Amino acid sequence: MKNNNFEDIVYNRQSIKVFDENTKIDRAEMLEMINKAVKAPSSINMQPWRLVVVDTPEGKDILRPLVKFNTRQNDTSSAMIVLFGDMKCHEKADVILSRMVEKGFMPEKMKEQFLNTYVPFYDSLPKQAMNDIVKIDTSLMAMQLMLVARSYGYDTNPMGGFEKDKIAEALGFDSERYVPVMIIAIGKSNYTSHGSIRLDAKEITTFK
Amino acid sequence: MKNNNFEDIVYNRQSIKVFDENTKIDRAEMLEMINKAVKAPSSINMQPWRLVVVDTPEGKDILRPLVKFNTRQNDTSSAMIVLFGDMKCHEKADVILSRMVEKGFMPEKMKEQFLNTYVPFYDSLPKQAMNDIVKIDTSLMAMQLMLVARSYGYDTNPMGGFEKDKIAEALGFDSERYVPVMIIAIGKSNYTSHGSIRLDAKEITTFK
Repeated sequence: MKNNNFEDIVYNRQSIKVFDENTKIDRAEMLEMINKAVKAPSSINMQPWRLVVVDTPEGKDILRPLVKFNTRQNDTSSAMIVLFGDMKCHEKADVILSRMVEKGFMPEKMKEQFLNTYVPFYDSLPKQAMNDIVKIDTSLMAMQLMLVARSYGYDTNPMGGFEKDKIAEALGFDSERYVPVMIIAIGKSNYTSHGSIRLDAKEITTFK
Repeated sequence: MKNNNFEDIVYNRQSIKVFDENTKIDRAEMLEMINKAVKAPSSINMQPWRLVVVDTPEGKDILRPLVKFNTRQNDTSSAMIVLFGDMKCHEKADVILSRMVEKGFMPEKMKEQFLNTYVPFYDSLPKQAMNDIVKIDTSLMAMQLMLVARSYGYDTNPMGGFEKDKIAEALGFDSERYVPVMIIAIGKSNYTSHGSIRLDAKEITTFK
């Protein structure tokens, strides 16, 4: 970890669209960053995020025709991190809860109650509701991943412009189960951002 | 701002469900935190997030029947921040882009191209696609808001369990236009979290 300055990491983050092509990110370092990003919260802690880290020329060849106007990021980034939401994330409920019990964070009885209540509840949800849950949760993790990347000296570009109905299959995943959320390009910045503005808090906030 | 330690802010964040009832958050301070949180990125910078900060007893009376099993957070938090995505966020495109031009971040000509291209594009998107965009973008901001809150010495609880089909109207907003994303309870922690676990990065990541 190279930077621990919260203010610098968060307030000076900008979307970076061209990266230094010679920078490789070691897979162990990538996993370390992911382990920090997934400290993000999720609905009933089901952690629906799944990641495909595309860091080889062959992988990038698969993505190139799918990323529309974002080919520069594909060509120059150290990796394109494709984020999916798992519509059947609750299949991991037993694993997650058993580890909670093991660590002493949850009594066995509560685990059983949870499995008997929430797993059937998630199973019963309409597809649209589940779509929202997994995309919202995965986005929370995505934001944290972009910030963790900066703490490691990297920059990112979150992208929504890609072939959403083709990307899961192209990467070998079941497109019914894994819904694409976004792609995050990551690498060493080789780009000067033009600067950006935001609406003021007062323009978007109501007090009640 | 009380804490600038990125590692502490991010990795020690936990969902807090009971707050000190005597802690009030000044509205100026709330707006300051929101102004920092909205540095988050969004699709074509349309910033679709809209916030209703419920910090009065009257406002909390409106929320109480809508928040299901989350009444403790409603009763004890300094505020319940209800986050909506604006399905017509592109109505603010002209304002946003004009300010970009004013600041010298974008030439006038590019603004015109953008308005002629992206506004009709957003207008043409199916409701489902727009729903995904505004919920994903608003969630990015939500994560950053939870972290900014910690840098100000507060804690949060993100909540998905509330009456999603009733909350906009109950707060006086058009439910077709403003889709609820989540509620974030914020305040001073008065709670010991039971601890939590996450799946390991290796269990959720594939390299390509």
